[in-house]
Amino acid sequence: MITLPYHHVTLKGGFLYEKQMLNEAVTMQAVYNRFYDTGRISAFRCDWKTGEPYRPHIFWDSDVAKWMEAAAYILHKKPDPALEEKLESLIDEIEKNQWEDGYFNTHFTVCEPENRFSGRERHELYCAGHLMEAAVGYYEATGKDRFLKLMEKYALCIEKAFVTEKTAKFSAPGHQEIELALIRMYRATGNKRYLNLAKHFLDARGYEKDGFEFSATHSQAHLPVRKQTEAVGHCVRACYMYSAMADLAFETQDKELLEVCKKLYADITEKKMYLTGGIGSTRLLETFTIGYDLLNDKAYAETCAAISLMFFAHRLLQSENNAAYADLIERILYNGMISGLSLDGKSFFYENPLEINLNNYKRFPSPDYKEKFAIPTRAELFGCSCCPPNLNRVLASLGNYIYGYENETVYVNQFADSEAEIGDMKIVQQTDYPRSGKIILKTEKVGRLCIRIPAWCENYTLNAFHTVENGYAVIENPDGEILLDLEIRPFLVESNPEIYANNGKAAVCCGPYVCAGESIDNIENLHALFIDGNFEASWKYNEALCGYTVSVKAFRKKEQKALYSKKIGEFEPFLLRLIPYAAFANRGESNMCVWFGLIPPTR
Amino acid sequence: MITLPYHHVTLKGGFLYEKQMLNEAVTMQAVYNRFYDTGRISAFRCDWKTGEPYRPHIFWDSDVAKWMEAAAYILHKKPDPALEEKLESLIDEIEKNQWEDGYFNTHFTVCEPENRFSGRERHELYCAGHLMEAAVGYYEATGKDRFLKLMEKYALCIEKAFVTEKTAKFSAPGHQEIELALIRMYRATGNKRYLNLAKHFLDARGYEKDGFEFSATHSQAHLPVRKQTEAVGHCVRACYMYSAMADLAFETQDKELLEVCKKLYADITEKKMYLTGGIGSTRLLETFTIGYDLLNDKAYAETCAAISLMFFAHRLLQSENNAAYADLIERILYNGMISGLSLDGKSFFYENPLEINLNNYKRFPSPDYKEKFAIPTRAELFGCSCCPPNLNRVLASLGNYIYGYENETVYVNQFADSEAEIGDMKIVQQTDYPRSGKIILKTEKVGRLCIRIPAWCENYTLNAFHTVENGYAVIENPDGEILLDLEIRPFLVESNPEIYANNGKAAVCCGPYVCAGESIDNIENLHALFIDGNFEASWKYNEALCGYTVSVKAFRKKEQKALYSKKIGEFEPFLLRLIPYAAFANRGESNMCVWFGLIPPTR
Repeated sequence: MITLPYHHVTLKGGFLYEKQMLNEAVTMQAVYNRFYDTGRISAFRCDWKTGEPYRPHIFWDSDVAKWMEAAAYILHKKPDPALEEKLESLIDEIEKNQWEDGYFNTHFTVCEPENRFSGRERHELYCAGHLMEAAVGYYEATGKDRFLKLMEKYALCIEKAFVTEKTAKFSAPGHQEIELALIRMYRATGNKRYLNLAKHFLDARGYEKDGFEFSATHSQAHLPVRKQTEAVGHCVRACYMYSAMADLAFETQDKELLEVCKKLYADITEKKMYLTGGIGSTRLLETFTIGYDLLNDKAYAETCAAISLMFFAHRLLQSENNAAYADLIERILYNGMISGLSLDGKSFFYENPLEINLNNYKRFPSPDYKEKFAIPTRAELFGCSCCPPNLNRVLASLGNYIYGYENETVYVNQFADSEAEIGDMKIVQQTDYPRSGKIILKTEKVGRLCIRIPAWCENYTLNAFHTVENGYAVIENPDGEILLDLEIRPFLVESNPEIYANNGKAAVCCGPYVCAGESIDNIENLHALFIDGNFEASWKYNEALCGYTVSVKAFRKKEQKALYSKKIGEFEPFLLRLIPYAAFANRGESNMCVWFGLIPPTR
Repeated sequence: MITLPYHHVTLKGGFLYEKQMLNEAVTMQAVYNRFYDTGRISAFRCDWKTGEPYRPHIFWDSDVAKWMEAAAYILHKKPDPALEEKLESLIDEIEKNQWEDGYFNTHFTVCEPENRFSGRERHELYCAGHLMEAAVGYYEATGKDRFLKLMEKYALCIEKAFVTEKTAKFSAPGHQEIELALIRMYRATGNKRYLNLAKHFLDARGYEKDGFEFSATHSQAHLPVRKQTEAVGHCVRACYMYSAMADLAFETQDKELLEVCKKLYADITEKKMYLTGGIGSTRLLETFTIGYDLLNDKAYAETCAAISLMFFAHRLLQSENNAAYADLIERILYNGMISGLSLDGKSFFYENPLEINLNNYKRFPSPDYKEKFAIPTRAELFGCSCCPPNLNRVLASLGNYIYGYENETVYVNQFADSEAEIGDMKIVQQTDYPRSGKIILKTEKVGRLCIRIPAWCENYTLNAFHTVENGYAVIENPDGEILLDLEIRPFLVESNPEIYANNGKAAVCCGPYVCAGESIDNIENLHALFIDGNFEASWKYNEALCGYTVSVKAFRKKEQKALYSKKIGEFEPFLLRLIPYAAFANRGESNMCVWFGLIPPTR
């Protein structure tokens, strides 16, 4: 399918709409302010002098570029002269400071011009890619092509350095991003050079082993991309690259490459992904580890990594028309990505662990050693601030994920009160989702309507004759009001027994939401709580927490003084109170668990 | 009570006897050979020159001293001219290379004589203490006082540097040991200066904050010792110091200091000790962490730390006459200490984790980072080789732990086929323990016999009228054959619910043994196994593994492909095969668990 771009979709209500509005009203400005305060904006003036504060960092361009991309998306939907002025002034600086040959990078221009394109781990092409994505977004939003032209010139400068004249000191960049950005440039301009350059960068991997900050494996350059079968190394780099591979496979109808992408996707989703859609099992180098190694309190699960996996799933959805990809996108949107943003829209998680044990932070009573764990509450800014503007651009373009089409077929991938036009086809989705699972769909000129039936939903009613294909309810020649009613209720989930960390445990989900328990609603020691496998729960939508709160029949292990005891299985009843995972850590520091002990159901 | 020294006890059979024989026949020579090969023996010649291999290390003297101490104990029980010759030749070197003023240390003499007594973390007094312990042992074993005199001279040199002239650059040494050694010197010689010097070193702590390799807390110098209430810092340093404190309290009838010791002991045994008697929850700096932080695969639980805790318990047993201390000694002897030695007596664990996940060692498929875990199989030597000779000396003096006395009362603290004489009192213990719980006791001239009833034993029969006091069955005027029958059978243990790592789990013990399961006897993924809380087990003594093997009714979580699933509690029956914990890793690398998932008993 072609997924319908956000600017053809009008979101009108529901979770996604509310998060998008929060982004426009609060988060965009919050991120801009922090970037302004830390010199990231003024860096574009390229006038930093030794000794001054805020020396431009090698990846600052990418931070600002992602924010610019988000701003472009917002402008596309409604004019905002002040926002446009901010963008224009940044583009002025880019134009002014772009090199004669098209090169642009604030850090290298100011700090070490002699070193451009000499270190694969210096994030130059990563920054370039994000600037290109922003330029495409701004061009599509405003029709103004100044920024795009500057970036096209930069793309040709890159082509010269890496392909024609080979003056660059490496071929495969350490942090992928340029590849998918070039394919966006190709799609926006029709210029095949960019597609070929993207292909060049993908094909370059697997032949160089030196110059990586860590190993070639860490940057997915241990093998030619077509030989890769396991997701390894830095998660964000990996999924940005896999996304570009899926794009290239789609554009060139390369079935073999598509199969590689599917293998990598299966390796992630069948072995290396948290229940929230988060990926990366260790903050040490932010990498994938081995299959089933999914420790909860040691999870890395970077916000950007969840986003990158969503990008990858989104590309495969286009090639495969399988609702499982849209299921994963929903999982990420409602859980492992949005957990990166506080409910007030102002602060952020870089890592999104599935368990917080405040004791972890005081394990060492002497000051000799501190173990490193994710921070337990969100912060307004990190030194490495890639996640906040990544949230900006995803939230500003959430419309991308709702609908898809192929000829006369329309796909409903996500549920949200919304309208969309696809050529002369029209679709209206009226729903209070996720507050309710009732969805009314009205279409015009649609020949075939495919509505995702989420994997989490066991019971649904649909008032039209339909078959089910690849997870979609398929209605031929839809007519009148289509009424779909998805039953949204809590349910228990267990892990594959190979996941050590979760054995003997269960998690509760409610519709698209993964649930979490915090001490603030329960007791300090969440590990002493066990869910009754004879599952009983009550649930209610909570406006403040943007999702369902669930009360679950559970047991609490009785307290004792002795360290070890022969008294076995002494429990007392306990009502376990759960909130949406993404809403954790919004009411102060608290222990938090997604996975709880389980008393198996009566046999 | 006074615990009866080993040389008054003849061990004749059973677990402790077999381990002692293994030590004499194999381990002593294995350790000597490794020390010889690595230059630790020749270091005593003090003729190392720059550029030569095997530069004497700052704590090598202590390694050899502990081996010498063990050799002395062996000589005490039976003559061994070859062994005595090895000791004499080492003592020759000590005599030859001792400084005019009594100072002796191979590292400082050869490598940096100008720096003696200048760095509290240089292990000088730690080495001195171990040499003193060896000297006392050799004197008591042979009646020859040459070594003791050399060490008395050294003690006076230390007194001068630290008390009289204060030329030393610190007061509280970084690694405690000298304190308890000086008290042994006092007991052997009757010279109170050594007791006072020990007291000086204990009282010196808590006033200096600088010069520690890590923090003062790490070396238990954060507070004056009498103000300490929580066990913190490096575990071995801690328990050596607590042992000295208990000795000092005993010698000086200092009730206040005894209370401090009891508080520290309670903090360890009620919050910071593994089921095996191991202590130290992290290999990072080898420290105690916070209460209930007892991760199994990350356990440090150094062999020396278990030994040090046993020393501490042994001292408190003397002051308190409470069988709980002897229970802990048994726990350590049969589990967390002896696990440090391979069944063939030739190789060693430094760390004794309660869980081995071989996956931990391959978590990082790229070579960028290796997480540090305990080695999964025993090694013949470590760079820091404190544990092997510590095992040597403990195994050679196991008789220390069997009996105690006070006036006409005799205490049976451990069960072992043995005989002992205490003045004109005699006790004979005939038993096949631990193969059987049947024990026949015959006494002569004993007015009161106190037999420990182990806390693990729920059912016992005793053919004599008795009361139970402080965990001892007390028989007044014992007469004829006393028949005790302790029921040895497997039983389930649960943790305090505050121990996160063990929640929802249970361990199996069998008599004095903690049991462990290895993959080699079960399945690869031990975390998929759950013990039936309606406990059923069969058990059998296994000669090769020196303890009971136990087969337990259990369940295995069914395999599945999906990472997450709504199928809850799908189990199939499984017979879980367990071995003695201490015997783990003797049949190759294998996953291992002590704590298994538990399906709670039917309510």
